[in-house]
Amino acid sequence: MKIAVLPGDGIGTEIVAEAVKVLNTLGLDLQMEQALVGGAAYEVHGHPLPESTLKLAQESDAILFGAVGDWKYDKLDRPLRPEQAILGLRKHLGLFANFRPAICYEELVGASSLKPELIAGLDILIIRELTGDIYFGQPRGRRIATDGHFPGTEEAFDTMRYSRPEIERIAHVAFQAARKRSKKVTSVDKANVLETFQFWKDVVTEVAKEYPDVALEHMYVDNAAMQLVKKPKAFDVLFTGNMFGDILSDEASMLTGSIGMLPSASLNAKGQGLYEPSHGSAPDIAGQGIANPLATILSAAMMLRFSLNQAEAADRIEAAVKDVLAAGYRTADIWSEGTKRVSTREMGDAVVAAITKTTIKG
Amino acid sequence: MKIAVLPGDGIGTEIVAEAVKVLNTLGLDLQMEQALVGGAAYEVHGHPLPESTLKLAQESDAILFGAVGDWKYDKLDRPLRPEQAILGLRKHLGLFANFRPAICYEELVGASSLKPELIAGLDILIIRELTGDIYFGQPRGRRIATDGHFPGTEEAFDTMRYSRPEIERIAHVAFQAARKRSKKVTSVDKANVLETFQFWKDVVTEVAKEYPDVALEHMYVDNAAMQLVKKPKAFDVLFTGNMFGDILSDEASMLTGSIGMLPSASLNAKGQGLYEPSHGSAPDIAGQGIANPLATILSAAMMLRFSLNQAEAADRIEAAVKDVLAAGYRTADIWSEGTKRVSTREMGDAVVAAITKTTIKG
Ligand SMILES: [Mg+2]
Ligand SMILES: [Mg+2]
Repeated sequence: MKIAVLPGDGIGTEIVAEAVKVLNTLGLDLQMEQALVGGAAYEVHGHPLPESTLKLAQESDAILFGAVGDWKYDKLDRPLRPEQAILGLRKHLGLFANFRPAICYEELVGASSLKPELIAGLDILIIRELTGDIYFGQPRGRRIATDGHFPGTEEAFDTMRYSRPEIERIAHVAFQAARKRSKKVTSVDKANVLETFQFWKDVVTEVAKEYPDVALEHMYVDNAAMQLVKKPKAFDVLFTGNMFGDILSDEASMLTGSIGMLPSASLNAKGQGLYEPSHGSAPDIAGQGIANPLATILSAAMMLRFSLNQAEAADRIEAAVKDVLAAGYRTADIWSEGTKRVSTREMGDAVVAAITKTTIKG
Repeated sequence: MKIAVLPGDGIGTEIVAEAVKVLNTLGLDLQMEQALVGGAAYEVHGHPLPESTLKLAQESDAILFGAVGDWKYDKLDRPLRPEQAILGLRKHLGLFANFRPAICYEELVGASSLKPELIAGLDILIIRELTGDIYFGQPRGRRIATDGHFPGTEEAFDTMRYSRPEIERIAHVAFQAARKRSKKVTSVDKANVLETFQFWKDVVTEVAKEYPDVALEHMYVDNAAMQLVKKPKAFDVLFTGNMFGDILSDEASMLTGSIGMLPSASLNAKGQGLYEPSHGSAPDIAGQGIANPLATILSAAMMLRFSLNQAEAADRIEAAVKDVLAAGYRTADIWSEGTKRVSTREMGDAVVAAITKTTIKG
């Protein structure tokens, strides 16, 4: 099993080092190869996604990704900015299914904006289509309007599009994920207003016939934005298009109040995946050894589950993370009165120790 | 000052009756004329927006609207459904600026999903562009894809569009509203991904030069969805396009936990406006006299302020609503232990009494 390890910029190197340490504890045959990406790659190779890094990623079963970006690259031409690396990887590997779990650990309930009873035990999975929709649809641009409210004036436009196979493949991913959980999916659309999402709803309804064991619910996006606030635990698997998924997955992650804990995965049709924390490169705290490595460690667990078929090893990592939280270990971002403040490395060590302990016990 | 009174369906007649009662208490020269709309109009005239109702609306300075819709009309052809009345009024009157306040009254803080300290005293104004964007953009439809990920397959598409004058006019509305409040506006876009919203951002930045006294902040829509949860009181006036505004205004209203309290306004370039509660027609509780009339009463206050130039009368209504809440009056939807449960009519009477008392005092 080959893993491309791409730490990237900012806190990326620190948090990925801890995840690699945890992976090495598991006694699996993992071949890990590291490469530069983002600003770090630009500095050396003049491009955020060098040919050699892309080739390594393509040849691997999975990519463990840290984070990219730093203010110092904000003035570069857009194609050379660190963020282009992640877009390039998604595009070249066809990573169309983005998994964004929103989990609220009992010990961290206090960090949420929501009342404890609404958020404690939250465990929902948002699946966002990642390569289509209005974020990529052509045509787009600026022109002089020939119709609409103000013909003859300057306007800008974008095209929202989804084809049947694009909707079918993300729907299958969602239904299959639901089978491994509560057998319940919510498909989010705006079928009452948009042709694209009436089509989405129609195709999803057809695909659902192949999953009679999974309950399907349709919900409008504005209502979903409300229900996530009102009663987030009513959801289990929620799936939607690229733009709605962008908005709702970010809203859902903020509900937990602890973004430093949230992993993510982006998968293609072959099961290859890119695994990264939901948070960014945090250049303001880079190099200080205080970043929270748990989102990256949990991303490594998702990698084992979804791309490497090592569900049991994934379970061990996730159980170890729960153990260290229960033992009171906290990095600065999730620290509260009465808990033990630890460094990035100490947190990684604590997870390793928790895994080792269960290994010996087992 | 002529007002078209359109109660509509469900609880619409009950809640509008209370708002009319309150308006009649103010001693203003208001000429109110009532007409059928929605399902009620369909029953009598065979159309949810009869010619006579539209004409009345067009000739009035403002429209006081209740709510439309009932499950029994769900099987009608789309153009005959009650909801088409509101779309028709928006279109024929050019009501492009939708005002959606999200206010959390001290007495109702407990109804929110959010922790009291995050939501108490919330008073933000979301302004949503209402007649453009992808909800109306042409072309749209279904076709066989000729490019994209799966050429040759069936696809559906919509067009997001904004012209310069459309963006300018909503930006002016937002900056002017900000001048009457904290002199701070947040323009929400997705300029990093969408051509339409890069143009939006560019035009808003130009318009801002005419308002050097107002602080302008730009925010991406996914971040706005997060910040509304994390720190809603950091916003004052937030304005955005039709679709983003649909999602964010609903999210913000749910933050308050008491949608039965939230008014709304939709204005055109001449200051004509349609005023309605943010909630719907609630056919399940219609005719029982238990609906909350306060959102409609507060919509009447907005009408006085924005279309009838009677800010002082608007203040009196809003102060009276605060008084009745402070006195412990609650309809069923906002009732909690230790408060007085009242009917729709009793709540209207309490507001009238509070206004009368201040009139005598003053
Ligand atoms: Mg986002
Ligand atoms: Mg809505």
